[in-house]
Amino acid sequence: MTTSRITEEAFRQVLRDGMPSGAAMPFEVVTFERGHVVLRLPTGKDHLRPGDTVSGPVLFELSDLAVYAALMTALGPMPQAVTTDATMHFLRRPRAGMLVARARLLKEGRRLVVGEVTVDREGDDGGPVAHAVMTYSVPPDRAPA
Amino acid sequence: MTTSRITEEAFRQVLRDGMPSGAAMPFEVVTFERGHVVLRLPTGKDHLRPGDTVSGPVLFELSDLAVYAALMTALGPMPQAVTTDATMHFLRRPRAGMLVARARLLKEGRRLVVGEVTVDREGDDGGPVAHAVMTYSVPPDRAPA
Amino acid sequence: MTTSRITEEAFRQVLRDGMPSGAAMPFEVVTFERGHVVLRLPTGKDHLRPGDTVSGPVLFELSDLAVYAALMTALGPMPQAVTTDATMHFLRRPRAGMLVARARLLKEGRRLVVGEVTVDREGDDGGPVAHAVMTYSVPPDRAPA
Amino acid sequence: MTTSRITEEAFRQVLRDGMPSGAAMPFEVVTFERGHVVLRLPTGKDHLRPGDTVSGPVLFELSDLAVYAALMTALGPMPQAVTTDATMHFLRRPRAGMLVARARLLKEGRRLVVGEVTVDREGDDGGPVAHAVMTYSVPPDRAPA
Repeated sequence: MTTSRITEEAFRQVLRDGMPSGAAMPFEVVTFERGHVVLRLPTGKDHLRPGDTVSGPVLFELSDLAVYAALMTALGPMPQAVTTDATMHFLRRPRAGMLVARARLLKEGRRLVVGEVTVDREGDDGGPVAHAVMTYSVPPDRAPA
Repeated sequence: MTTSRITEEAFRQVLRDGMPSGAAMPFEVVTFERGHVVLRLPTGKDHLRPGDTVSGPVLFELSDLAVYAALMTALGPMPQAVTTDATMHFLRRPRAGMLVARARLLKEGRRLVVGEVTVDREGDDGGPVAHAVMTYSVPPDRAPA
Repeated sequence: MTTSRITEEAFRQVLRDGMPSGAAMPFEVVTFERGHVVLRLPTGKDHLRPGDTVSGPVLFELSDLAVYAALMTALGPMPQAVTTDATMHFLRRPRAGMLVARARLLKEGRRLVVGEVTVDREGDDGGPVAHAVMTYSVPPDRAPA
Repeated sequence: MTTSRITEEAFRQVLRDGMPSGAAMPFEVVTFERGHVVLRLPTGKDHLRPGDTVSGPVLFELSDLAVYAALMTALGPMPQAVTTDATMHFLRRPRAGMLVARARLLKEGRRLVVGEVTVDREGDDGGPVAHAVMTYSVPPDRAPA
């Protein structure tokens, strides 16, 4: 069964309620299935760092957002889930353009949820620009919708 | 010998030239010695996420900035150094306030520089709010000033 | 083109020549294609830790071996490649049994190679028991066969 | 208060009872204070890999052991604590010799304990050979002694 336990609109509401920086990202949802989320994010001049590349913090925030969404597709709305660790590998310097983040869950535990995400730049064939593994701690009193 | 190979002003210029998002962070330099940097960053409402805590991307960007600065205190201006991996542990949810990032280098290689950073919230005694280890790839043709 | 640039036997020779602990692991090769390696490892009593689970160091060594092999399928024999960072997530406590490690490369750079590996326990449907991302530094003077 | 909540002998007993590979390591305890542990480990020929260096799995196991011990100095005997994530940076290739692992805790949570460890080679002034950050999940029903 791959139906998400949260709608895209409910996920955006969780962001608006509690994570304004995430809500402010102009991302588009491509896939929103249980445990599997794909987001697209256009990046422009203000995200650039030396070498005209998209900055690490933007790649971090996009990756975090994609795994956070994947978590909720499996557990339902969970605004109090918090990232406990995040490991990112920056594989290539992405030029500004359309980024695509593909997240999937590796573990759905009662206390910890682990996901991974690969970020590609649309139109580039050179391979992913970033990869991340992220762990979220789920509150003990969670009552997923 | 602990004299930095870059001045604070030259570091801020590297940010303005190539990393606008870093240059825009209202950080203050406390320590700027060779291989050892301490930065303070006030955080306010716009950085909050669920639970009124400072967001992960802000902690990431502050940590990245502190280790990036530590790298340049050892190697001199190095705008083309790029983060290749970053592992963050979010240890406590920091409420908005003054964050203090203390970075030191673990390795100054010819090709890779590794540093770690601990982030505390000023006035809190509960221990660090975040810890990160970051690796930077140094361009082969670097000619540090 | 998915042909490996090293044979299984040549890889085992690299281990015998320089990594006796790897050579001593009783692993079996399932897949040995360019950038994609699958290894099987039987685990027994001597690898157990509290709870009768396979120990972390064994999962680490198996993961390292699988990504190291994947690196050589892409670059050819490369005994001097060294692991520079390794991030493991231990997702479930695996009971002793047959472990299967599936490795693929995320980046084949001139200086850094990054791979990821997922370890499952054969016969378990609960999802992977471990996941790792590993970076290898490739010697500048490499002359792959 | 820096008194350990477990004795060295009780820690060795935890290893003998449940982690034979750890118990078999010929380590010596230098420091065993609350949240702070220093271990020494002689390494010889059988731990070598290409370049005559100590193997990654040995550095991993030593690091794991040191942080596991640090956890128990803070929480008391805790054989069921399990490593959930481990990030290692291999900073220099250590030649065989005496390794010294210094571990400290970054977080002592009710559910997660995070520690870091630095490994040096005695007699080398070039800086640490490895650094690790490790997270342990603590059983909910723990009743520390």
